[in-house]
Amino acid sequence: MSKLVNAKAVKNMPWEECPKGFEGPIWRYSKNPVIDRHPIEDVSRVFNSALVPFKDEFIGVFRGDNIDDIPHLYVGHSKDGIHFTFEKEMIHFVNEKGEAIPDTNYQYDPRVVPIEDKYYIIWCDDLCGPTISIAITEDFKKFVKMDNPFLPYNRNGVLFPRKFDDRYLMLSRPSDSGHTAFGDIFLSESRDLTYWGRHRVVATRGYEWWCALKIGAGPAPIELDDGWLVFMHGVNRTCSGYIYSIGALILDKDDPSKVLYRCKNFMMTPEMPYETVGFVPNVIFPTCALVDGPTGRIALYYGASDTYVGLAFTTVDKVVDYIKKHAR
Amino acid sequence: MSKLVNAKAVKNMPWEECPKGFEGPIWRYSKNPVIDRHPIEDVSRVFNSALVPFKDEFIGVFRGDNIDDIPHLYVGHSKDGIHFTFEKEMIHFVNEKGEAIPDTNYQYDPRVVPIEDKYYIIWCDDLCGPTISIAITEDFKKFVKMDNPFLPYNRNGVLFPRKFDDRYLMLSRPSDSGHTAFGDIFLSESRDLTYWGRHRVVATRGYEWWCALKIGAGPAPIELDDGWLVFMHGVNRTCSGYIYSIGALILDKDDPSKVLYRCKNFMMTPEMPYETVGFVPNVIFPTCALVDGPTGRIALYYGASDTYVGLAFTTVDKVVDYIKKHAR
Amino acid sequence: MSKLVNAKAVKNMPWEECPKGFEGPIWRYSKNPVIDRHPIEDVSRVFNSALVPFKDEFIGVFRGDNIDDIPHLYVGHSKDGIHFTFEKEMIHFVNEKGEAIPDTNYQYDPRVVPIEDKYYIIWCDDLCGPTISIAITEDFKKFVKMDNPFLPYNRNGVLFPRKFDDRYLMLSRPSDSGHTAFGDIFLSESRDLTYWGRHRVVATRGYEWWCALKIGAGPAPIELDDGWLVFMHGVNRTCSGYIYSIGALILDKDDPSKVLYRCKNFMMTPEMPYETVGFVPNVIFPTCALVDGPTGRIALYYGASDTYVGLAFTTVDKVVDYIKKHAR
Amino acid sequence: MSKLVNAKAVKNMPWEECPKGFEGPIWRYSKNPVIDRHPIEDVSRVFNSALVPFKDEFIGVFRGDNIDDIPHLYVGHSKDGIHFTFEKEMIHFVNEKGEAIPDTNYQYDPRVVPIEDKYYIIWCDDLCGPTISIAITEDFKKFVKMDNPFLPYNRNGVLFPRKFDDRYLMLSRPSDSGHTAFGDIFLSESRDLTYWGRHRVVATRGYEWWCALKIGAGPAPIELDDGWLVFMHGVNRTCSGYIYSIGALILDKDDPSKVLYRCKNFMMTPEMPYETVGFVPNVIFPTCALVDGPTGRIALYYGASDTYVGLAFTTVDKVVDYIKKHAR
Amino acid sequence: MSKLVNAKAVKNMPWEECPKGFEGPIWRYSKNPVIDRHPIEDVSRVFNSALVPFKDEFIGVFRGDNIDDIPHLYVGHSKDGIHFTFEKEMIHFVNEKGEAIPDTNYQYDPRVVPIEDKYYIIWCDDLCGPTISIAITEDFKKFVKMDNPFLPYNRNGVLFPRKFDDRYLMLSRPSDSGHTAFGDIFLSESRDLTYWGRHRVVATRGYEWWCALKIGAGPAPIELDDGWLVFMHGVNRTCSGYIYSIGALILDKDDPSKVLYRCKNFMMTPEMPYETVGFVPNVIFPTCALVDGPTGRIALYYGASDTYVGLAFTTVDKVVDYIKKHAR
Amino acid sequence: MSKLVNAKAVKNMPWEECPKGFEGPIWRYSKNPVIDRHPIEDVSRVFNSALVPFKDEFIGVFRGDNIDDIPHLYVGHSKDGIHFTFEKEMIHFVNEKGEAIPDTNYQYDPRVVPIEDKYYIIWCDDLCGPTISIAITEDFKKFVKMDNPFLPYNRNGVLFPRKFDDRYLMLSRPSDSGHTAFGDIFLSESRDLTYWGRHRVVATRGYEWWCALKIGAGPAPIELDDGWLVFMHGVNRTCSGYIYSIGALILDKDDPSKVLYRCKNFMMTPEMPYETVGFVPNVIFPTCALVDGPTGRIALYYGASDTYVGLAFTTVDKVVDYIKKHAR
Repeated sequence: MSKLVNAKAVKNMPWEECPKGFEGPIWRYSKNPVIDRHPIEDVSRVFNSALVPFKDEFIGVFRGDNIDDIPHLYVGHSKDGIHFTFEKEMIHFVNEKGEAIPDTNYQYDPRVVPIEDKYYIIWCDDLCGPTISIAITEDFKKFVKMDNPFLPYNRNGVLFPRKFDDRYLMLSRPSDSGHTAFGDIFLSESRDLTYWGRHRVVATRGYEWWCALKIGAGPAPIELDDGWLVFMHGVNRTCSGYIYSIGALILDKDDPSKVLYRCKNFMMTPEMPYETVGFVPNVIFPTCALVDGPTGRIALYYGASDTYVGLAFTTVDKVVDYIKKHAR
Repeated sequence: MSKLVNAKAVKNMPWEECPKGFEGPIWRYSKNPVIDRHPIEDVSRVFNSALVPFKDEFIGVFRGDNIDDIPHLYVGHSKDGIHFTFEKEMIHFVNEKGEAIPDTNYQYDPRVVPIEDKYYIIWCDDLCGPTISIAITEDFKKFVKMDNPFLPYNRNGVLFPRKFDDRYLMLSRPSDSGHTAFGDIFLSESRDLTYWGRHRVVATRGYEWWCALKIGAGPAPIELDDGWLVFMHGVNRTCSGYIYSIGALILDKDDPSKVLYRCKNFMMTPEMPYETVGFVPNVIFPTCALVDGPTGRIALYYGASDTYVGLAFTTVDKVVDYIKKHAR
Repeated sequence: MSKLVNAKAVKNMPWEECPKGFEGPIWRYSKNPVIDRHPIEDVSRVFNSALVPFKDEFIGVFRGDNIDDIPHLYVGHSKDGIHFTFEKEMIHFVNEKGEAIPDTNYQYDPRVVPIEDKYYIIWCDDLCGPTISIAITEDFKKFVKMDNPFLPYNRNGVLFPRKFDDRYLMLSRPSDSGHTAFGDIFLSESRDLTYWGRHRVVATRGYEWWCALKIGAGPAPIELDDGWLVFMHGVNRTCSGYIYSIGALILDKDDPSKVLYRCKNFMMTPEMPYETVGFVPNVIFPTCALVDGPTGRIALYYGASDTYVGLAFTTVDKVVDYIKKHAR
Repeated sequence: MSKLVNAKAVKNMPWEECPKGFEGPIWRYSKNPVIDRHPIEDVSRVFNSALVPFKDEFIGVFRGDNIDDIPHLYVGHSKDGIHFTFEKEMIHFVNEKGEAIPDTNYQYDPRVVPIEDKYYIIWCDDLCGPTISIAITEDFKKFVKMDNPFLPYNRNGVLFPRKFDDRYLMLSRPSDSGHTAFGDIFLSESRDLTYWGRHRVVATRGYEWWCALKIGAGPAPIELDDGWLVFMHGVNRTCSGYIYSIGALILDKDDPSKVLYRCKNFMMTPEMPYETVGFVPNVIFPTCALVDGPTGRIALYYGASDTYVGLAFTTVDKVVDYIKKHAR
Repeated sequence: MSKLVNAKAVKNMPWEECPKGFEGPIWRYSKNPVIDRHPIEDVSRVFNSALVPFKDEFIGVFRGDNIDDIPHLYVGHSKDGIHFTFEKEMIHFVNEKGEAIPDTNYQYDPRVVPIEDKYYIIWCDDLCGPTISIAITEDFKKFVKMDNPFLPYNRNGVLFPRKFDDRYLMLSRPSDSGHTAFGDIFLSESRDLTYWGRHRVVATRGYEWWCALKIGAGPAPIELDDGWLVFMHGVNRTCSGYIYSIGALILDKDDPSKVLYRCKNFMMTPEMPYETVGFVPNVIFPTCALVDGPTGRIALYYGASDTYVGLAFTTVDKVVDYIKKHAR
Repeated sequence: MSKLVNAKAVKNMPWEECPKGFEGPIWRYSKNPVIDRHPIEDVSRVFNSALVPFKDEFIGVFRGDNIDDIPHLYVGHSKDGIHFTFEKEMIHFVNEKGEAIPDTNYQYDPRVVPIEDKYYIIWCDDLCGPTISIAITEDFKKFVKMDNPFLPYNRNGVLFPRKFDDRYLMLSRPSDSGHTAFGDIFLSESRDLTYWGRHRVVATRGYEWWCALKIGAGPAPIELDDGWLVFMHGVNRTCSGYIYSIGALILDKDDPSKVLYRCKNFMMTPEMPYETVGFVPNVIFPTCALVDGPTGRIALYYGASDTYVGLAFTTVDKVVDYIKKHAR
């Protein structure tokens, strides 16, 4: 059985037991959505966001689509991972010298990854087209942004939660400038977070229908004793739009460009009203996982229909077992 | 503060106070939708329609999508602007000599504009492709249609409620023959409603995301002492279709091709079940405003998901104030 | 008045009277959907399926979209046509010699047609692209598959429930390899179910908007004394996707390539929550009709939003009368 | 036999007899192209242009694509209609008061039509998208531009060379904002060249393949005693782009919205090297016809592959005879 | 070494030796094109055509694009396979009872295949969309057309030149209704030329770039002692259109749905002016091969740029050797 | 006047004086193309290639499209820069340890840049989609390839010919996976050629029509005392495909992400038969410049219609003067 590595206890870990008779690998929180429309003044929808334990609470970076539909990033707080309060002012970044820099036109789909005693924010930013930016914070007040580490067009950058020797590793999904109709997961390396290279293909769209159009990494990879657990989104296309479901991979411990197991099934697909109706119907998009070391419990946060934040639960044992049983 | 000009009292004006704690510029009627599916025999959906005070009641022209999905126009009546009855027979037009003329293949999205003691109907008609037609009525029984005043392809023709010297003014949104993926607002002039010219650009799509794809005028412009208040629709595109929101402009009093204020935010966006689910999900499309002179109250009628008619409220003070505060 | 021909009594025929005041030609079962999400282990959605009376129960072939979104066919049972149980293993076909053959990549949208004492399954199969396959069963345990009777790309094959002299007749809708944006109904003949020819155009898309994009046959044609009643789907396209409604044709008794009556209206269009929200919103797709000879009652099964199975009712008298009254 | 009406003698009329054995209705000038690449400094290509007899020479308005590919209009001169010199400065227009106005972003495909003692220039101009502009000149030095007579999107405006009672008539081809994939010919009326209305469909694309995609009028209509001769372009689409050929219509003398004869064949199609190779291969696009009254000779100028100007010849007798013989 | 089977001597076989130093498997006739523009009155271009030895001459069926761009079929004659004369009237078909039937809207890309003492014409015909028709002639005067043997959409039907037991075999390339962007080769069987079934995939597009978009059979397969030699077209797509090259397959002698050798290279690609410039630039499209039994010489006819007929030469030894050496 | 910096004398520099009366900034070699079709056995076309002075000759890396249309890279030699011989075997790369690595599926559009005593090859390579690779050679026999320095999708990587302090600089044009319909020039930095970051926008498509669709760098930048001269391609789109012309930029000496001058005109556009006819008509694509230090002469090599290599000439004085005069 795979075991968690480097996973601490999470204080006030949100949790709900699996409903009786439910047989899937992941179950929804019964009081979803945890973030409803209009949680911040002049913000229409919060979704596709990420949080981490921080001091006595949870803190995170949240995508807020303003009342002009343009997304920006906001800091949010929660005592229990279920009820949230938000700061009213969007995040403004500084450069590596600590100087203020101009806001870009939009920012969205942030991930937050702790490495040692710092927090790394990775999001989709505007550099004459959408691509990945990286910032570092220690206090969620000052966010230091790296100097354009990725070329456009790229999205869904997800950093590994520790270095490999002296190198950082990042998953990403190269894209085009629109509602990209393709998407594969790549792995990239860097010694300094600014200069990236030695790119590798990790996993490609297709095989099954539910992920035939594109796939991309979700929360930061979760370290096991024998691999890396990666929740991902997979996209299918119907005559009425895209369907985003949640799936998973287990990558090789030492060389995470190698896929050990790829779950051939989606593990959750849009079914609830808050997932099937909204700004973009039929989207569930995982971006954050809280993992409690002692119990192996996982709280998986996901954007729902580009309108809400949903929460779902599983355990390391259950999910890894499911992936291995249903590997292609 | 802007003041209404030329606005009479509206008898039986529909109204509901703003819910406590609600902060937006426009609030929905709590018993929406005011027109549900199947309001007329053999008509599937009524939406994108317009009414005016007329004698002791409200009367209007309504888009009814028949049970073959083809839209025609119907006369409807209401005592209170909330409950409606409809005539069973679609409108048949006569020419300027009063002779019967063949029905065109379809008619949709009517506006009704009173000028002096006549009522002008402007709608999207078929002339070997969609374009704007105009008819005049005095009694909502006989509708006299002008002789092909616009070339295809055009839509969302909206007449100003009074003449400028000897000229009529019309806003419109030149289009193509399909689900047009662009749209800007133009102004045109005429001395006789049949021959049009001196066209001007008024406002173009873009700037903000919520109106990045197209914009078009909604109800007839509302005259203020220092400008014209124009509610409009703005359209954004997702991977699962178009999103229609409601925004607003204030145009120059004497030269309405000039924009004085353009609200950078949408003022209402699809959120309610009858707005997010239906024939075309995520559409709210304003086409009519009743304005009560003494109180400045506005009752805004809008099509919802191409299936229902919704009603929302605001006041001149509130909406103008909001536009000016959030002008770009 | 048209009379049913060759229609037996159906034991335990599902039925519910028309709601008072309802004026349309078809009414929904009040407890819809009759098949909800997850009816089979590891199957996400069952829809677009067909059943027949068989011994003391109903038996049928059901499209089940697995938890990888790929569809396969399953046998299902019901005592009352309303509550269903399913076999856990998908159908595996044998060739005409009774030998096992490899499963194709996907199978979907089955119809089941009894002719004399055998049952013919027609579905969309994979032959280097989607096309129509045919299998014969006598016991719903052994399914003998014909040897590639149709070239790609084709869909919605629907067999007539008796031979014409020595010839089988099949309706189909030639397609392309994707979310085909066109579709007309053709008629084909065969003496042996394997070799097909003498193809004829029966009915083409267009005329009305609700079926402007494509049309295709639904359940097996129902024989009347003066024609064939064919329920069909018709598809319209909006800026947010396709809309599938239900319509009908009456074909010539002796030469069913001739349309006697074509109902210019849809007879049912997506309106209920289970029809307007789901994997593909706004789809109702008829695939099966139970017809009770003595009473003329019809129980019409249809896929709803590619997620559920819905049930609706009518009678031969009512529906034929409606078609003739609203024929184009 | 149809006879020319209102056609004067053309001094120095360009002419070449029909080659022996040639059987088509129009023959090319043997020394084509008459305008080669780079005829003006900093102009890459001249094509789709128009000239008229003026005093002792020919004068005209020419489309010149600059060395940034953007088209502007230039005045050109010729003694013989075969050799040309051009003015170096593009045309700048003045308004009806004679005041200078800003140049629009581009101008292309001009026609020049004399009515009484003035010359009317009609071309495709920029009004927040391409549409038709009109200007009047008496001396080809001062060009007075009408005030936005047409809404976007429109192209290929062609004025009739005389008024009908007090009305001007214009043919045009409503378009979209790109490489429009459709096009039909409409007729519009005006009393003053600025306000236009009473639009009519004249002729639609399709019928034959060579004009299946779009059709548009070419030179000004040529008046006959029993109709109007209109050369037009017709466009077909192949897997490697559009093919522009030359065809013709004869319209009713008194009501030119009626087509008396439509030639079902193209009368010339791209075949020569200067027509099949160039900036846009396989384009011949007629824009000007000189007609010599006494002899009935026609010199037809056409753009070739968006790169050259070609010249072809025919006579009224020959071409009218051909159209009537091959009318659909 | 493969040997020809069932190949007679061809009287007046066209031939030219391979140019010195030329190393490819096929060489062009030095006086190409053998059919230039306008070979028939009112026919603009002849290409994609087929001929056979017949009595003392060659006779064939030719695609002639009329001066409305619509293609029809014409009978043509030649003494030497290089100079041609054509009948002026297009072919009109009769039904199996010998009765006249209406001409379809278009006919194109014919192949002519002798089997025993009859000649089979296979071409792309109109049946509410393009598909394959078949006719039989004995004298090239009366052409008896089968009753709609194929459903739309299909093209490039190529019959095998002898029966397999009691069955005819046909290669075809299922298509869509436009400029189809995909294409694979299928094999179908029939006992009577009207009813077809037992379809098989033979070869699919892709593998190499030159045939990445689509592939289709060219002339009738040439019988060898150990297989069937099939020339084919392969299509690549650039940013300026499709490129059609010539390739080849060798199919299994007894089961020609099996590919023995597939040449990974094109064997000829558009290079000459008459191949790279014309109605559709960069197309060479083989449709006919004359094979001289005693010498093994092959005269390969191909359409060039949808405008001309070109002729190329090779020998069975040379071409089979090349295919085997470059098989994938 | 700008002066060349770091430019050595080129032995046997190819050269031809400007033709009399020619006024443009660049003139073609009178004996173009310098590389015709089939220059290498089994290679169909050589184009978009680069050479450098090397010992007593010129040596380079050439794109050769094989007879399956797939491009690979070949070493070529020339004594005079006009006549070429090629090695028959495509280049096989080794990794940084000198070990053989598998050939990727395709390689194209190489640039060759000398820095100090090594030669850097930059080309478009396959990494699960097209992107930029880099290799180093000292002898044009052993080519050491960096470990995946760029993510897909990217093209037209062009290295600066010297380091800036300790950093290499690269221009590139991020793309999508097909015939990319957009393209802007970015600048990236690296300390080691493998890890890249600090990306900047340099110049964007648009402004003028000739480069409205995309722009990309051509040969390595040429160092001047006051800037960097960069020849580029600019692309326009017609209804029959893309048009590639040649333009130029002058970048800031110290911060080449800044554009000092951008020539608003193209400097050469497809006009000659070898440029307007070929595999992709209307393409001229500059990839290499030889610069003779003492004289300032430039020999500019460009791919022509994806089929040939053309050669053109200018001088530093002439071209810089032209750019500055026509800067936007």
